[in-house]
Amino acid sequence: MNMAPEVPAILVLGPPLVFKAYESDFSQKFNFLKPWEKPIPLHQFISTHSSNVKAIFCSAVSPVTSEIIESLPELRFVLASSTGVNHIDLRECKRRGIVVANAGSTFSEDVADMAVGLLIDVLRRISAGNRLVKSGVWRREGDYPLAHKLSGKQVGIVGLGSIGLDIATRLKAMGCIISYTSRTMKPHVTFPFYPTIHQLVANCKILIISCALTEETRHMIDREVMLVLGKDGIIVNIARGAIINEKELIECLVKGEIGGAGLDVFENEPNFPQELFPLDNVVLTPHHGAVTEEACRDLYDHVCENLHAFLENKSLECEVDM
Amino acid sequence: MNMAPEVPAILVLGPPLVFKAYESDFSQKFNFLKPWEKPIPLHQFISTHSSNVKAIFCSAVSPVTSEIIESLPELRFVLASSTGVNHIDLRECKRRGIVVANAGSTFSEDVADMAVGLLIDVLRRISAGNRLVKSGVWRREGDYPLAHKLSGKQVGIVGLGSIGLDIATRLKAMGCIISYTSRTMKPHVTFPFYPTIHQLVANCKILIISCALTEETRHMIDREVMLVLGKDGIIVNIARGAIINEKELIECLVKGEIGGAGLDVFENEPNFPQELFPLDNVVLTPHHGAVTEEACRDLYDHVCENLHAFLENKSLECEVDM
Repeated sequence: MNMAPEVPAILVLGPPLVFKAYESDFSQKFNFLKPWEKPIPLHQFISTHSSNVKAIFCSAVSPVTSEIIESLPELRFVLASSTGVNHIDLRECKRRGIVVANAGSTFSEDVADMAVGLLIDVLRRISAGNRLVKSGVWRREGDYPLAHKLSGKQVGIVGLGSIGLDIATRLKAMGCIISYTSRTMKPHVTFPFYPTIHQLVANCKILIISCALTEETRHMIDREVMLVLGKDGIIVNIARGAIINEKELIECLVKGEIGGAGLDVFENEPNFPQELFPLDNVVLTPHHGAVTEEACRDLYDHVCENLHAFLENKSLECEVDM
Repeated sequence: MNMAPEVPAILVLGPPLVFKAYESDFSQKFNFLKPWEKPIPLHQFISTHSSNVKAIFCSAVSPVTSEIIESLPELRFVLASSTGVNHIDLRECKRRGIVVANAGSTFSEDVADMAVGLLIDVLRRISAGNRLVKSGVWRREGDYPLAHKLSGKQVGIVGLGSIGLDIATRLKAMGCIISYTSRTMKPHVTFPFYPTIHQLVANCKILIISCALTEETRHMIDREVMLVLGKDGIIVNIARGAIINEKELIECLVKGEIGGAGLDVFENEPNFPQELFPLDNVVLTPHHGAVTEEACRDLYDHVCENLHAFLENKSLECEVDM
């Protein structure tokens, strides 16, 4: 379907997984510009369309830089297909009055499930057991190191947004003792709050990272934090890789200074820290916390609603506070 | 420490993992007979001590057959280190008035966590993702099949004892819709009850097996049940392998007639069905549902209490209803 040139254009960067999955449905509703279909560099594509682009729809791996923002004088809206928006230059958006929205809580349940799954996997050695069995070797009781119990463990959650709260609900039902840290203490939340990561880590054995990546949280989980967590401690990260100092994490894991890790995100994706590959107490997944069929369908609805709301000057659902 | 011969002897069969872990503590409290330390066949060892054996303490992999029971005229008590007691000839014990006790709810939380961990692992492809990452390959969004959401799924639990209830609590907190079948409807339980496996499976997409292995439940989960569960259905078994017809399970999994499986137990342990090794939607662990350090310590206390209670003619904690 051809749109008239005056129909506001939405530049797609990435493209997000949901865009590929629902491309024909999307294209019947909006005037999308798809730079990956043209054999020209992105900046050239953008300059050709600059006067018509009112909005950007982007995946978490496609940076929306100040350069892109500057080259689009009509840009009024950036919609991320992810919960994290660290790939968008928020300062420049704010300066230019450009509204930014994210996926809101579309992925919360799925990402929380992934956090719980990674934690159980590390504690109970599920991936390691699976590998052992599938290698054709059966070990009798006692031939294999004992695993660790989840119930009764003290779990510290870093960042109690909608994902962190879903993680807390799940682990509370599994008998864990929950506490948290975040920028501010959450009203109506009864879990103990610690104002700093250092106070939190002194009171827990398991640390789950579910905060945004910002200038303040970059490398917040460093060697000092890990050493307090200790050699039985476990770290799970389903947020953004760079919240952890990955170099120091690798060192602590390899030396046995912390007990294990479940990581869905990495500092320099798509690069994985290969030093961790031989470790049975480390479970790595390829940034798939949000990647379910069901969440993808929900995101399609969420994106349509937000783009319609923007085009019709109505209020947005998941505007990011800048 | 040498016990006087009149001290009632407890025959250890297996030996259970907890026995190996706490052998010196145990030996200071009870007069244990350890057949594996003697270079003679078990039946010969037993006949040498037959007049003094009042109790048996056994692991799940050591059958207490009618032959063993018959050869021990003074036997009054069989204590299992496991929750399942299908390795004990209960009919013969009943006939002879021998009391049988099991591990009670010592392992419930851990086995429930294992069930949840296996389920999340299959749905969210954690072990498969871990294998992919550790093979050195990163796949971008869309290069890998989408996983499935846990929240909102209809989960049928087969057997709502203490393990089944712990599974239900956990999955309810994760947004699942729970129903169950068991020999009888449980009072004070609000989850919908279906009197037969066929009614249960018609109303769920995920089946979790947490019942005892008995003559009635052997091969209860057969091809007919699996076909109703359907090609998106998932089976998790943390109970006993033979509750599922494993040959039919393999066929359904290989043909894609059901969606996936998480199995901690197998029909002919220590043999695994090798046909399942190449399947990414199948996660196998080596009967480790109960194998945590913490549960092992709890079991030690439980076993001491029960053996003391037996020796002092006090009431037992976890007598098995026969």
